[in-house]
Amino acid sequence: MRWSIIADPRPVRPLAVSLGDPSGIGPEIVAKAWDARDRAGLPPFFAVGDGLSIEAVWPGPIARLSDPADAVAAFPDALPVIEVQDTGPITPGAPDLAGARCSLDALELAVGLTRSGTAAALVTAPVAKSQLYAIGFTHPGQTEFVAERCGIARENAVMMLAGPTLRTVPVTTHLPLVKVRDALSVELIVQRARITWRGLVRDFGIENPRIVIAGFNPHAGEGGALGTEEIDLIQPAIERLAAEGINVGGPFASDTLFHARARATYDAALCLYHDQALIPIKTLHFDEGVNMTLGLPIVRTSPDHGTAFALAGRNEADPGAMIAAIALAGQCAARRAGAELATAG
Amino acid sequence: MRWSIIADPRPVRPLAVSLGDPSGIGPEIVAKAWDARDRAGLPPFFAVGDGLSIEAVWPGPIARLSDPADAVAAFPDALPVIEVQDTGPITPGAPDLAGARCSLDALELAVGLTRSGTAAALVTAPVAKSQLYAIGFTHPGQTEFVAERCGIARENAVMMLAGPTLRTVPVTTHLPLVKVRDALSVELIVQRARITWRGLVRDFGIENPRIVIAGFNPHAGEGGALGTEEIDLIQPAIERLAAEGINVGGPFASDTLFHARARATYDAALCLYHDQALIPIKTLHFDEGVNMTLGLPIVRTSPDHGTAFALAGRNEADPGAMIAAIALAGQCAARRAGAELATAG
Repeated sequence: MRWSIIADPRPVRPLAVSLGDPSGIGPEIVAKAWDARDRAGLPPFFAVGDGLSIEAVWPGPIARLSDPADAVAAFPDALPVIEVQDTGPITPGAPDLAGARCSLDALELAVGLTRSGTAAALVTAPVAKSQLYAIGFTHPGQTEFVAERCGIARENAVMMLAGPTLRTVPVTTHLPLVKVRDALSVELIVQRARITWRGLVRDFGIENPRIVIAGFNPHAGEGGALGTEEIDLIQPAIERLAAEGINVGGPFASDTLFHARARATYDAALCLYHDQALIPIKTLHFDEGVNMTLGLPIVRTSPDHGTAFALAGRNEADPGAMIAAIALAGQCAARRAGAELATAG
Repeated sequence: MRWSIIADPRPVRPLAVSLGDPSGIGPEIVAKAWDARDRAGLPPFFAVGDGLSIEAVWPGPIARLSDPADAVAAFPDALPVIEVQDTGPITPGAPDLAGARCSLDALELAVGLTRSGTAAALVTAPVAKSQLYAIGFTHPGQTEFVAERCGIARENAVMMLAGPTLRTVPVTTHLPLVKVRDALSVELIVQRARITWRGLVRDFGIENPRIVIAGFNPHAGEGGALGTEEIDLIQPAIERLAAEGINVGGPFASDTLFHARARATYDAALCLYHDQALIPIKTLHFDEGVNMTLGLPIVRTSPDHGTAFALAGRNEADPGAMIAAIALAGQCAARRAGAELATAG
């Protein structure tokens, strides 16, 4: 019997990292992630945005490139940047409309480069939504914009929060709490669980993912005494998922679902509303939480925080979440590429 | 200048620890807490319940006493027990009505001994509510029973969850989530915050407590875009509290309120619904969370978990929360006694 060793015939592809709002902490944390590239074992990446916004807050070397293909070679010695435009003067902490346009152009270009396969994955730094709305941006956020550019209906682009010991997926996101109940349905829970399951298989390499679903009410409703959503919505969804072969447990009381021993029993927890998913992840992994969009043809991650204008330009921003977002995007992209290779082979 | 050292003229008073349901893990964790008395620096305490329920699950020495005043002398060498009745055979893990009667008698006696000053504080092990209801118990739980025996309206007995790095107070507790909004009011938030403030001063010895209030909606409502409860309820409550001199901040987005740096900025977080308060405390401090009742004339704590019948009799129950509950009760009782002494002196 002979073994043949097949090298990946394709060149290493860099990741595209959009800088987000040039007056926020995006440029600083992307540059600091480059500083940490060896220590954190980061894959090669290039920034997309205005190089001046980096130079305004960081003294390290940048390499302005016209071709992203040169990024891998440049990466060891300088932070590669693909520039989108000259936004004029940038004041860290003071966002303006020119900066918002720059952040949108950077996002658009970074998505395009990833869709085309020039970049292996997309990582997005935070944008200022109110500024984007002022220049006519009509999507609720970057995720919906990316989904549209990928030809995916926005309800099929699902947010997962990932930290070193926990992954949560909110079934509903930015809704007033009193509107959550009416937004929930068996179908929605099933759809979110399916996309989560596929993401765990494809992007995290988990063969038979274990998903749990949190209860909606205290003590998961105590058999109906403290609410009936578990009986009316969650249990039927679990039955349908089980019939499809998806390993899903619950509903479990949400207060006892996130301590260390409980976390060890599953790969992702489906939560029914924003804070149920976000409280545990940010309590445990505030500086290293990654927001990942499941259900897309591309890998897309972002740090799980905002522009933090109050911190911008003070060299105080913690790059932990950006480093984690780049690392996770690289790992997921490598898994997808490996799977494609295996299929092709 | 001469210093006079004034010894406390009163004898050390033991704590009363009710054993809860004799078929649950209560007897085991109380006995294991006695095992840990030196290592954990626990104050002297006596158990109240059926000695047989301890002997069924623990091989250590117990001292059946008829007078609680003998408990302090007995404590170094054996677990002191004040017996309430002979409940007949006890099967760990298999609750019955005789056991429920025993747990209620133990609670009643332990409350009485604490109210009379014989015991310095009350600690309660978990009971089986469904069994208690079956024997005619009409209170929602032990807390309301204790409040009534203390002559306190149940709405003035406020649950606080306390762990080593976090204290939370739920404004509403065991309600279906869809009913929380209508149960909330400016008055209720103000009342809960006042009782929390007094508890932090009196029982925790904090001079000018810092209280924060969590938002009800994602991102604390984002200025009304994601819900108006912050504007309609929380902000008016904060204004009233501030006018009373209570140091209270918020509303803060609840997902970013419980990580380590945030926790360091306040003494207690007021949360609006059960899981908002319980998720962070149990995620961080699952094995050491204490449930403390504020607003009572006595100090009362309990471990923040249930009877765990599935674990009973297997010597697998973790006594961490019971140890923490006894330790905290002892500390709070000592502070109240010290304050009384200072006032008397």
